[in-house]
Amino acid sequence: MFKGPVESKNEAAMSELVPEPRQKPVVPMKPTGINTNLLGYIGIDTIIEQMRKKTMKTGFDFNIMVVGQSGLGKSTLVNTLFKSQVSRKSSSWNREEKIPKTVEIKAIGHVIEEGGVKMKLTVIDTPGFGDQINNENCWEPIEKYINEQYEKFLKEEVNIARKKRIPDTRVHCCLYFISPTGHSLRPLDLEFMKHLSKVVNIIPVIAKADTMTLEEKTEFKQRVRKELEVNGIEFYPQKEFDEDLEDKTENDKIRQESMPFAVVGSDKEYQVNGKRVLGRKTPWGIIEVENLTHCEFALLRDFVIRTHLQDLKEVTHNIHYETYRAKRLNDNGGLPPMTVETEENHESNL
Amino acid sequence: MFKGPVESKNEAAMSELVPEPRQKPVVPMKPTGINTNLLGYIGIDTIIEQMRKKTMKTGFDFNIMVVGQSGLGKSTLVNTLFKSQVSRKSSSWNREEKIPKTVEIKAIGHVIEEGGVKMKLTVIDTPGFGDQINNENCWEPIEKYINEQYEKFLKEEVNIARKKRIPDTRVHCCLYFISPTGHSLRPLDLEFMKHLSKVVNIIPVIAKADTMTLEEKTEFKQRVRKELEVNGIEFYPQKEFDEDLEDKTENDKIRQESMPFAVVGSDKEYQVNGKRVLGRKTPWGIIEVENLTHCEFALLRDFVIRTHLQDLKEVTHNIHYETYRAKRLNDNGGLPPMTVETEENHESNL
Repeated sequence: MFKGPVESKNEAAMSELVPEPRQKPVVPMKPTGINTNLLGYIGIDTIIEQMRKKTMKTGFDFNIMVVGQSGLGKSTLVNTLFKSQVSRKSSSWNREEKIPKTVEIKAIGHVIEEGGVKMKLTVIDTPGFGDQINNENCWEPIEKYINEQYEKFLKEEVNIARKKRIPDTRVHCCLYFISPTGHSLRPLDLEFMKHLSKVVNIIPVIAKADTMTLEEKTEFKQRVRKELEVNGIEFYPQKEFDEDLEDKTENDKIRQESMPFAVVGSDKEYQVNGKRVLGRKTPWGIIEVENLTHCEFALLRDFVIRTHLQDLKEVTHNIHYETYRAKRLNDNGGLPPMTVETEENHESNL
Repeated sequence: MFKGPVESKNEAAMSELVPEPRQKPVVPMKPTGINTNLLGYIGIDTIIEQMRKKTMKTGFDFNIMVVGQSGLGKSTLVNTLFKSQVSRKSSSWNREEKIPKTVEIKAIGHVIEEGGVKMKLTVIDTPGFGDQINNENCWEPIEKYINEQYEKFLKEEVNIARKKRIPDTRVHCCLYFISPTGHSLRPLDLEFMKHLSKVVNIIPVIAKADTMTLEEKTEFKQRVRKELEVNGIEFYPQKEFDEDLEDKTENDKIRQESMPFAVVGSDKEYQVNGKRVLGRKTPWGIIEVENLTHCEFALLRDFVIRTHLQDLKEVTHNIHYETYRAKRLNDNGGLPPMTVETEENHESNL
């Protein structure tokens, strides 16, 4: 990085060159009246590498929630997304578990490491949702859970002696599983998304898309998009949060073509043309979940993990959490929520 | 990124392989009793690239303060660090400016872009420091300025309707210029660093190091380090904030060998062995500021910009700002500071 010592120091090797023709002017933030020019490499872009090193050390949190009727392959899909058993196994259902009588919230945490980067993943499952005879207000316990995480974060944030990194249990992404009926969204689907899209990033997916032909899928997707639009439901990525034209172009494509992702999940491996693939074997062929001509799983995976994960976290923090926080402080006359618990924390930490 | 469609679909090409021998177990965050294994690449490490893209779009703030008696080359050094005229030109002193009668605080902002990354740089100059007949308490206006920036940030942070990105005017780094006397630190040096090291990241530098021979420099550096230690002055990077052994090893080297950096600045270019270099021309040779055998400018530049810039910002936020915030809230009975200004902002934003 440094130049080595210069051996020859005699006058012959030196010649004065001042003033040099100046290069690239820097952009003044406000008119400063100073002539500013760069005289060589500074190292501003090394901030990226410095941030990378910090992230490699600390890792990051990601919390994903799955919602939908039982039997739509929620657990399998999450296991397929993260290529590991991060959600309960559907197979265990037969043995002990039964469909719960009310909606339950189950959060399971794991640390998954890849390329030296640690992700603290929490999968939040919602067994019992949509499985009752009367499913009125069954989105309520889910909204309550989401808000409780905002409240936890807020309490930690307004604490006097607060943690250096506030543990983030907020739901960054909610995968909503639509039944592949080929008809239309059910009232419960609309009701859930209408209420929850205001508090969390919802990504609608069409579950078990292998039950539909290509034509059925295309038509069903169009119909679902139309219904969401007619009902004023804004799913993630929300139009209003596009930050620039690049965002808009990229996200418009997702909003208008990919959504809702028609997916198939699997945690079983098969060999196709000498390659191992995750898939589902049927008498008429193997459905390869990561083959884009078979289903849109790879699109969803790329979207949630490889291109928009950081943005999902930022929209959660900057929009959903901020909305909750502002409402909470307004209701409280501008004062932060103070609880005995908070006070105790504070005293024990000081 | 995706596999292409698989042409051959006949049974011959497929063979069931379940269960596969499972690889690398993921580390469970808490005992979950679930068998977790990775079945291929997920894309967790793409978070780095996603963060890079975000940083390329938003840029980052960096605020650096220079303190020291006039004539120590503060402006020239900052101009050398950022390879541009980001601080007032010392040459203009002769014409209009005079040494101010009290310490003044002058902040100048610029945007410098390199490798597509935008740095919103603010250079905070403190003309008049140490230049009076009686320099008692002349660190006070500087401490006041630093605290005012914390207060601004705090007010914005506790606002109900707060900005998505709080403008950061906090001083991330204070370069303190020590006169190259070869003797010892002056009482004012000790007094300043004693008071300010508690509120800001101080990096002491020996100014105009070209006035010392190699032996004088080595001895003076040792003496300054000893004096700082004896007086209990903790400069940046502070021992207590090393996060792991890697940090400690790297920072110990800086604390025990490099500090205080003996530097020479220049914004003039010369040609040495066919290469353009920033330097100072004397009858006995050219002092190349970026040549490590000539002075430690390159060490300082690498330290402040290329390895520790992000950390300077994080220590400012996590330690100095948090200390200010905790004190402020404690003094206020746990309540955030509320001003008319804050209320107005809030009303107009909602």
